[in-house]
Amino acid sequence: MNSIIDLRSDTVSKPGEGMRRAMASAEVGDDVFGDDPTVNLLEERAAALVGKEAAMFVPSGTMANLIAVMTHTRAGDEILLGDQCHIFNYEVAGAARLAGVQSHALKNTEDGALDLADVEAAIREPNIHAPRNPLLCLENTHNRCGGAALEVSTMDGLAELAHRHGMQVHLDGARLFNAAAALEVPAARLARECDTVSFCLSKGLGCPVGSLVCGPADFIREARRNRKMLGGGMRQVGILAAAGLYAFEHNIARLADDHANARLLAAGLAELGVFEPNVPQTNIVVANVRRGSLEQWIGAFREQGVLAVPFGRGRMRMVTHLNITREDIEEALRRVRRAVEAVAV
Amino acid sequence: MNSIIDLRSDTVSKPGEGMRRAMASAEVGDDVFGDDPTVNLLEERAAALVGKEAAMFVPSGTMANLIAVMTHTRAGDEILLGDQCHIFNYEVAGAARLAGVQSHALKNTEDGALDLADVEAAIREPNIHAPRNPLLCLENTHNRCGGAALEVSTMDGLAELAHRHGMQVHLDGARLFNAAAALEVPAARLARECDTVSFCLSKGLGCPVGSLVCGPADFIREARRNRKMLGGGMRQVGILAAAGLYAFEHNIARLADDHANARLLAAGLAELGVFEPNVPQTNIVVANVRRGSLEQWIGAFREQGVLAVPFGRGRMRMVTHLNITREDIEEALRRVRRAVEAVAV
Amino acid sequence: MNSIIDLRSDTVSKPGEGMRRAMASAEVGDDVFGDDPTVNLLEERAAALVGKEAAMFVPSGTMANLIAVMTHTRAGDEILLGDQCHIFNYEVAGAARLAGVQSHALKNTEDGALDLADVEAAIREPNIHAPRNPLLCLENTHNRCGGAALEVSTMDGLAELAHRHGMQVHLDGARLFNAAAALEVPAARLARECDTVSFCLSKGLGCPVGSLVCGPADFIREARRNRKMLGGGMRQVGILAAAGLYAFEHNIARLADDHANARLLAAGLAELGVFEPNVPQTNIVVANVRRGSLEQWIGAFREQGVLAVPFGRGRMRMVTHLNITREDIEEALRRVRRAVEAVAV
Amino acid sequence: MNSIIDLRSDTVSKPGEGMRRAMASAEVGDDVFGDDPTVNLLEERAAALVGKEAAMFVPSGTMANLIAVMTHTRAGDEILLGDQCHIFNYEVAGAARLAGVQSHALKNTEDGALDLADVEAAIREPNIHAPRNPLLCLENTHNRCGGAALEVSTMDGLAELAHRHGMQVHLDGARLFNAAAALEVPAARLARECDTVSFCLSKGLGCPVGSLVCGPADFIREARRNRKMLGGGMRQVGILAAAGLYAFEHNIARLADDHANARLLAAGLAELGVFEPNVPQTNIVVANVRRGSLEQWIGAFREQGVLAVPFGRGRMRMVTHLNITREDIEEALRRVRRAVEAVAV
Repeated sequence: MNSIIDLRSDTVSKPGEGMRRAMASAEVGDDVFGDDPTVNLLEERAAALVGKEAAMFVPSGTMANLIAVMTHTRAGDEILLGDQCHIFNYEVAGAARLAGVQSHALKNTEDGALDLADVEAAIREPNIHAPRNPLLCLENTHNRCGGAALEVSTMDGLAELAHRHGMQVHLDGARLFNAAAALEVPAARLARECDTVSFCLSKGLGCPVGSLVCGPADFIREARRNRKMLGGGMRQVGILAAAGLYAFEHNIARLADDHANARLLAAGLAELGVFEPNVPQTNIVVANVRRGSLEQWIGAFREQGVLAVPFGRGRMRMVTHLNITREDIEEALRRVRRAVEAVAV
Repeated sequence: MNSIIDLRSDTVSKPGEGMRRAMASAEVGDDVFGDDPTVNLLEERAAALVGKEAAMFVPSGTMANLIAVMTHTRAGDEILLGDQCHIFNYEVAGAARLAGVQSHALKNTEDGALDLADVEAAIREPNIHAPRNPLLCLENTHNRCGGAALEVSTMDGLAELAHRHGMQVHLDGARLFNAAAALEVPAARLARECDTVSFCLSKGLGCPVGSLVCGPADFIREARRNRKMLGGGMRQVGILAAAGLYAFEHNIARLADDHANARLLAAGLAELGVFEPNVPQTNIVVANVRRGSLEQWIGAFREQGVLAVPFGRGRMRMVTHLNITREDIEEALRRVRRAVEAVAV
Repeated sequence: MNSIIDLRSDTVSKPGEGMRRAMASAEVGDDVFGDDPTVNLLEERAAALVGKEAAMFVPSGTMANLIAVMTHTRAGDEILLGDQCHIFNYEVAGAARLAGVQSHALKNTEDGALDLADVEAAIREPNIHAPRNPLLCLENTHNRCGGAALEVSTMDGLAELAHRHGMQVHLDGARLFNAAAALEVPAARLARECDTVSFCLSKGLGCPVGSLVCGPADFIREARRNRKMLGGGMRQVGILAAAGLYAFEHNIARLADDHANARLLAAGLAELGVFEPNVPQTNIVVANVRRGSLEQWIGAFREQGVLAVPFGRGRMRMVTHLNITREDIEEALRRVRRAVEAVAV
Repeated sequence: MNSIIDLRSDTVSKPGEGMRRAMASAEVGDDVFGDDPTVNLLEERAAALVGKEAAMFVPSGTMANLIAVMTHTRAGDEILLGDQCHIFNYEVAGAARLAGVQSHALKNTEDGALDLADVEAAIREPNIHAPRNPLLCLENTHNRCGGAALEVSTMDGLAELAHRHGMQVHLDGARLFNAAAALEVPAARLARECDTVSFCLSKGLGCPVGSLVCGPADFIREARRNRKMLGGGMRQVGILAAAGLYAFEHNIARLADDHANARLLAAGLAELGVFEPNVPQTNIVVANVRRGSLEQWIGAFREQGVLAVPFGRGRMRMVTHLNITREDIEEALRRVRRAVEAVAV
């Protein structure tokens, strides 16, 4: 309990004994030749979990999204997405530099969705001056919108609009299982009307490394070429895939605990009078800082052994995960209170 | 007077006798070798007109902007610009595909400017997840904002903010001389705090072809490489440059007439009860259509010999220029009135 | 006769009175709207001349080739071409940066062709590690190979091979009419088996500016998008197109004179014992320098009023054109002789 | 012994017990935050092994090379490399599509080197038509040249030439430790004059996944941005790094065994009269097929339980590695003999 309580991200979680054993005993092969049975099984299970035909393992959520964009578009196209989404904000402009597509960032609603009218207005009419719009990208849960979970009806409505205009839909479902847990619907239902969906093993599911891109078989076939080009083709990657298979069995049902912990944390923060946290739907707490500088607070927390990250101006983020228990949250709140008192003095 | 009154754009204007004579007698050379004396003179005069060190002739405003973006940035950077600007809307996503940069489109204010706070909020803090922000792009006059002219103080304020954050500023001044005429300040003053500025010979200045990119000498040197790569290096282009020199002498002072004609047109349209035109600051009339479909009105105008273009949903644009006299506007209004009556019947 | 004899390139030729009159009186319109009747006529005639369905005017040969590559390929493809060709050597790596394609440069034979076996060996078998090969690029006449004219049988053989492997063929025919004149076959016959062909107005045809890309109508339609993206869409460009129409009538038949002049020049140079010129098939003389430095010789020529360009290590190039008469060549040889004597002393 | 003898690549080797234990007990952290102690140690050791200041873990050799190219160049540059090298042949044209650079592929000598004169001739003189040449890429050992090991003097000579012309040198050392073992020099000595070097953990070193890019600290800092953009940033990747640390201790000294096995294999193949193998310097056997089709032979081998891959027209490749013993090679030769007899009958 004296140790550091690391709430910077759910990506910081470390594999436990069971997952490590699964990795250590994984049957492997050279996945570039399609020979890794553990990867093959993971891809099959992943596709089934989100209700798609096929899936492909990649080293990160960023590569999953990038490959989706590259495979859905041609260089010179324009994609529609939210101005708060991960692709636009945290992927180093790879969609522009590497895929050659223009990102038309529409204002995200507070709950991480897009306004139907905004999307419709943004679709360009065929014209020699205008790029084509083959793709709409959604994100669920939505990280910058405080882990908001987009409802089935929201997902379906946006996908229906896109399809009506001949566009495909890619869902950045880095934390899709958190959304499914929060909304109590299957992940496959949330993703049903999306043409492709990616999700991460390395966040709430607690694996060391890896994400999956899921979609139609011919899409995944072409995606494998793009993965190779980007340098995401790996060899005996069954070591990592084994962790994913373990997580599918053990770490999905428990996501609701992370959400309860996040609500506990937010409620505790709100009481201190200094922070304005969201009411978390899932495992992400985002809090505006009412007074003092953000850097100062992040530092004061760190001194007490609680790690948070800056998250836009005057805002910090804390994320619950596999390694964080209810007791950790209670202890974190005690520490934060001490930090507030120390600063106040 | 029975002929068509073409208000689709100021790009449709045709060279008159004087300009044609200037072109026909132009001294020329191979500009790829730097040997065209007329181009050299045009570039020198252009630089002086906008108060920059050097200038380069290019075949279009689109190429002028693209070269500016390519020369100011590295692939993988992010540029800040307005969501209504020409670069973002009418240049076929070239900034993404060709320059490899992400466009962060901020909401333009109604008068074509950007909110200082929006710009400041959009500048990304140094972080491995975020692209760098080396460039802010402005547009003056602002086409999609109805030819709005941005004041000196607006220009200077935005440039000062950008420079304070280590960013460069490029001004898409396709219609810069219209802004200068409307605001009664020298073009060089408007562009003073911008690092580079481009303007078009082919719009209000009435030339057949061409634009200029202007900026520091070393910037222009590197820009010449990018022009060559894009295929914008031309040979005895003094033919076209001669028109530009002619326009500098004869077609700048007269821009105020276009503005008066645009105001006359807008006022006349407003009286008809069907259209909601802007109050034009310069030569662009943008009118919302109150009833009926846009396509129907564009068609009805065309039948009467008045050409306009659709300009976003339910909106049309009409532009005054060198070939449009006050009498043409009066006649255009008579014809539009007939169109309204015909439709109304 | 005391004036400078400029043999640096056929791009340096200047329009004469007839061509200037044609330009000055050209009927024009806004070509971005498809309204320029002179451009439309030029494009129609150009397509007919090379036996293709449609054509498009562009500002340069570099843009013509770039657009052809962009339109035939997807980013990430690989094109096959000669290691001496213009695209690979003089277009600033635009195929890589702008089109996103890898250039596989095969050793050109001395006569500007490619070895059929080399091409066949270079076509990659379908494999996840390998780019696709949708395009073979040829050049005729071949600039770096001394203006060599590729025979009909060579053209047809290479195109047949490419088509057999599902590839398209683009012909960089910057100087296609020189090849046609030298081989005494119609340009359309030379280009017959090529899917697309570009040629320049600004070289042997003596126009100030411009090139044409020719091919199937749907190809040209998509090419217009790419032209717009690159900034090659121009307005009243009928001014320049008029020169092209004039050249079609007056400057094709006379190309044989340029070829005779080139042969005269090469023969004269060979006699001096210092230079090893090619035996020109068309209008390009390429000469190795046997002793002394290339820079020294270029300088010594310039002092005598004869302009040549360096053309690879120890090699210079001289090109005959519209503005160079037989008497100019005789005078040039007298001057070169003086340069040799001056250096020798 | 009845099991399949997999000689397709040294990438197919599977981790043994010791390596698996090392992975299972690895201390890990979130490497995107720089928190993984095992990765940090691996990077430190890797840098030391090849004599560079810093190193970075990446998921594949392809990404290692791509990041090196992206970090050394600007979009629009041209790199010089061998026409048989991995970057040009097996990386899906990523250098063009993703880095935006033109690959100038020079003819590799049979021993995997480049001719100094060819390199010198390929360096372009500064000119507005020509891309810049900031980078020379070498490969050692050279895969397509049969695992040839380039001598120190060859490496130094090429690097010296490049540096004299202001170019940087990147060494694709995917199998650098094989070269070091064959030449009996330290890997650091081979790479000494190269500015950056990459090597693979997943080939001769027998790890499941991973490569390292090594070079100056500021280069690696910028490389981390490019890795993030490509989606190569991973989380608790210490699991994989632990295998690398294990391999540094246990799998480098043993590479000489792979080389002896390769020589044994090649000698045995040569005796059969059907294949023309190289005399392997390292662990790669490349054999031309004298009669029969390549596909037939690959198939006949497979039926006997020996796996090889096609490697260009009429050529197959077999690679020895960690999982292949001397007895495996003897058995493989017996099986191949049976295959030859079966086919001959």
